[in-house]
Amino acid sequence: MHWSRWGDPAEAGPLAESAFALVDGFIGTSDTPAVDPADVRLSEPLAADLLAELAEIVGPEHVLTDHDTRLHRTRGKSTPDMLKIRMGDGSDSPDAVVRPADHDEVIALIGWCVRRHVALVPFGGGTSVVGGLAAERDGFAGVISLDLIRFDKLIEVDRTSMTAVLEPGLRGPAAEALLGAEGVTLGHFPQSFEYASIGGFAVTRSSGQSSAGYGRFDSLVVGLRVATPLGTLELGNSPANAAGPDLRELVMGSEGTFGVVTAVRVRVRPVPVVKTYESWQFAGFAEGVTAMRTLAQSGVLPTVLRLSDENETAINLARPSEVGGESAGGCLMITGYEGTRAAVDAKRLAVTALLTSLGGTALGTEGGEAWAAGRFHGPYLRDSLLDVGVLAETMETVTFWSNLDHVYTSVKAAVTESLGEGSLVLCHISHVYETGASLYFTVATKQADDPLAQWAAAKAAASAAMVRNGASITHHHAVGRDHKPWLAEEIGPVGVEMLRAVKQRLDPTGVLNPGVLIP
Amino acid sequence: MHWSRWGDPAEAGPLAESAFALVDGFIGTSDTPAVDPADVRLSEPLAADLLAELAEIVGPEHVLTDHDTRLHRTRGKSTPDMLKIRMGDGSDSPDAVVRPADHDEVIALIGWCVRRHVALVPFGGGTSVVGGLAAERDGFAGVISLDLIRFDKLIEVDRTSMTAVLEPGLRGPAAEALLGAEGVTLGHFPQSFEYASIGGFAVTRSSGQSSAGYGRFDSLVVGLRVATPLGTLELGNSPANAAGPDLRELVMGSEGTFGVVTAVRVRVRPVPVVKTYESWQFAGFAEGVTAMRTLAQSGVLPTVLRLSDENETAINLARPSEVGGESAGGCLMITGYEGTRAAVDAKRLAVTALLTSLGGTALGTEGGEAWAAGRFHGPYLRDSLLDVGVLAETMETVTFWSNLDHVYTSVKAAVTESLGEGSLVLCHISHVYETGASLYFTVATKQADDPLAQWAAAKAAASAAMVRNGASITHHHAVGRDHKPWLAEEIGPVGVEMLRAVKQRLDPTGVLNPGVLIP
Repeated sequence: MHWSRWGDPAEAGPLAESAFALVDGFIGTSDTPAVDPADVRLSEPLAADLLAELAEIVGPEHVLTDHDTRLHRTRGKSTPDMLKIRMGDGSDSPDAVVRPADHDEVIALIGWCVRRHVALVPFGGGTSVVGGLAAERDGFAGVISLDLIRFDKLIEVDRTSMTAVLEPGLRGPAAEALLGAEGVTLGHFPQSFEYASIGGFAVTRSSGQSSAGYGRFDSLVVGLRVATPLGTLELGNSPANAAGPDLRELVMGSEGTFGVVTAVRVRVRPVPVVKTYESWQFAGFAEGVTAMRTLAQSGVLPTVLRLSDENETAINLARPSEVGGESAGGCLMITGYEGTRAAVDAKRLAVTALLTSLGGTALGTEGGEAWAAGRFHGPYLRDSLLDVGVLAETMETVTFWSNLDHVYTSVKAAVTESLGEGSLVLCHISHVYETGASLYFTVATKQADDPLAQWAAAKAAASAAMVRNGASITHHHAVGRDHKPWLAEEIGPVGVEMLRAVKQRLDPTGVLNPGVLIP
Repeated sequence: MHWSRWGDPAEAGPLAESAFALVDGFIGTSDTPAVDPADVRLSEPLAADLLAELAEIVGPEHVLTDHDTRLHRTRGKSTPDMLKIRMGDGSDSPDAVVRPADHDEVIALIGWCVRRHVALVPFGGGTSVVGGLAAERDGFAGVISLDLIRFDKLIEVDRTSMTAVLEPGLRGPAAEALLGAEGVTLGHFPQSFEYASIGGFAVTRSSGQSSAGYGRFDSLVVGLRVATPLGTLELGNSPANAAGPDLRELVMGSEGTFGVVTAVRVRVRPVPVVKTYESWQFAGFAEGVTAMRTLAQSGVLPTVLRLSDENETAINLARPSEVGGESAGGCLMITGYEGTRAAVDAKRLAVTALLTSLGGTALGTEGGEAWAAGRFHGPYLRDSLLDVGVLAETMETVTFWSNLDHVYTSVKAAVTESLGEGSLVLCHISHVYETGASLYFTVATKQADDPLAQWAAAKAAASAAMVRNGASITHHHAVGRDHKPWLAEEIGPVGVEMLRAVKQRLDPTGVLNPGVLIP
């Protein structure tokens, strides 16, 4: 991962001509380069005596303090994170990066952090977009990044139960390659897939683009091994049970504040023989939403189901390489089918009949395949926009169907009012349930003199519009530091006390990812 | 509900001739009647000054201390509960029964219990089979039963989102009648359906006979309102989200130890137009299990799926009115289909093709309809057995498919060894998942001189065989007091500390259902 951009530098580049023309005309551009990486101001490295103690636990070659390594473990990949690092602000860098080999070394490192009162930030893929990697350092003797990069094994595949045990440091492609060699797949493909990690998926409740077919990541997790200051927690002996509260559901979403996940048992499915993606046109967002709801409530779902609103359709955001190009108009829906030939044919037939009856116009496979080809490319587009002085960011929420239009309208209005006219607010739905759906907003505007304050105000306005209108602060981006105040409002004071009680019992000295999640 | 038997006395009766002959021949019988209800020794009623204070909160007509009312709120419906009450032991009776009208009165009652240090046992349907209603009274000024009988309303149906808000005191049939008038159903039909309550389903993680089609109850819950000593907890603004740990999953399974659930938002589905049940024969349990697993992992599931092992098939337990009658042999599978005509036809076609290809022989609808007709009758059979000195009880567990046969064999062996030859140990599977399934055991044996000790030993042996072989202590019966030691083993010391932390924060004086759940 690039230190100040998304992904692989070879994949990056300036805006395409059509996209630049769109942005330059509607928003305006100005050359806004990042500083030189050597000029990013990091924290002081950890003191030598502490480093020596860490080296005794994991070996000296796995305790790193060089500028480049620490720079690459500084914060996550939200737009505020990018703005800060591009300006040279590396103040949230870890004071050392430590790479344990196994569960026992993680237990030992946690014990050491408790004794030395050093804050510990678990690091998987580094793709948090909610400030989940920016620990509060006040009151601590230092901050270490616990890099899970050596937790890269597929431990077990149980083909009878269709489960697999994965180590948390595996990034999406590596996990899929190991599983694929056994003929199985997770089917979890969020936009961050190429860089995010298995452990991160679990502790943030990630949801992927194929969630209609494979399910959210938290629904794929059946077991967890967690290293905590109190010792090892092992959960998950069954698909589901009635043995009291489901503690797996407390670890999922905990973002390293209760412990460090060191193994994840997941559901797997056979590698699909066929994968095919199509596009549809609906007259408007309301018609498309009704169609999605009908599919979800009929139990007739494709593997991928995504609907762009009119604005997103107009600028072709679903196909990043064609942004600014000609649009078909209306609202674009993507449907994808994965599985055996027979299963794909049957699903496609049923979905096609329903969508047609609900006013959809089938547009064939070209648009769907274009979406699939560009599905992981969105974040590169953001970097290109930041380069030309355009602030671009995403936000997402989820609510029940009956409240969806109200939340959609409220969030759009709040963001537009905050950022002013000349801002783009686009939306799509990409995760559906019987009872409701997500809303994913993409926002672009001309950077103000203080873009961090500019975005903070817009984000606060949008967050208030979500939570105060009965929606959740996040469908799949987790809480981190950025959503913490809104989480408190969402779960109320009793809910906050439940989280604090668990936190204080498991981590009484508060060294695990301090400042994150717990209000 | 009868004070010492299941359900409606009009439905009860002696064993059918064929069943009596079977039991008398294999186990042996002896007349073992219950005491007269007036002779059951209850606790002392609550002191008059305390009763007067309760009357100020809920009104004097809703504070009851008469023998009959308290007798009917004494313990639940496990076989040990039945044995004790039949012998005249009412020592776990509440000292008063209090019937609040609404959430605010529950909050007030909880506050009063904290101030007066009186234990509070929430009472829904009274059908716990794990000791969930037998609070520990030591150290408290008394025990009250908080009867939710006045929480009997359907508060809201949201037909767009397909959700409904139900009050927790609604029993299964009343809830279905109210929902049915709106054209929707929960589809939750556990064996306790006729008497168990909505609140009970939620706090015990109940699972119904149609779980393959409608899902477990915890998967149907999307929102909860809970009265706690710290105030009101409101959870559930969306189908799913990433806003930290899912606190709904902490309330579900909590059996009144964290608070009292006063409203439940659930998923609902359209009332099925067609309901049809069939039976199948498989050569043996292993073949039937493979067929079930194939269905679950293919995503081709009927609404009801149930497989009896050879023993259960031989005595016709799936059809209580025919116990002891002629059996077809092999292993009996029940498949049920509910939905629209088209959906039922499509599912039935797909399931029939798969089951046939996996060695199943279709037996038509007669056996399936007989199962459906007798599906809630099992508990009456137990009463008739207790009357003739036969101890009968059920136990259940859940594990992954690859471990299922091992757990099945281990539990059967443990129970048989504990109770001795001449005991019946029957088993069926009635809840399947992609990764595993439940095992439900029915046990019958000649009562020893101390049947409570006799059963305690068998239960301990079976529980150890479950948990030590990697299965859960319970798939859908919850923890109560009976499973508490095994829960501690199942979730380990760190898991226990998580539960204790939440308990101590929400209920620092420990008045909520003391002795239940929390190890």
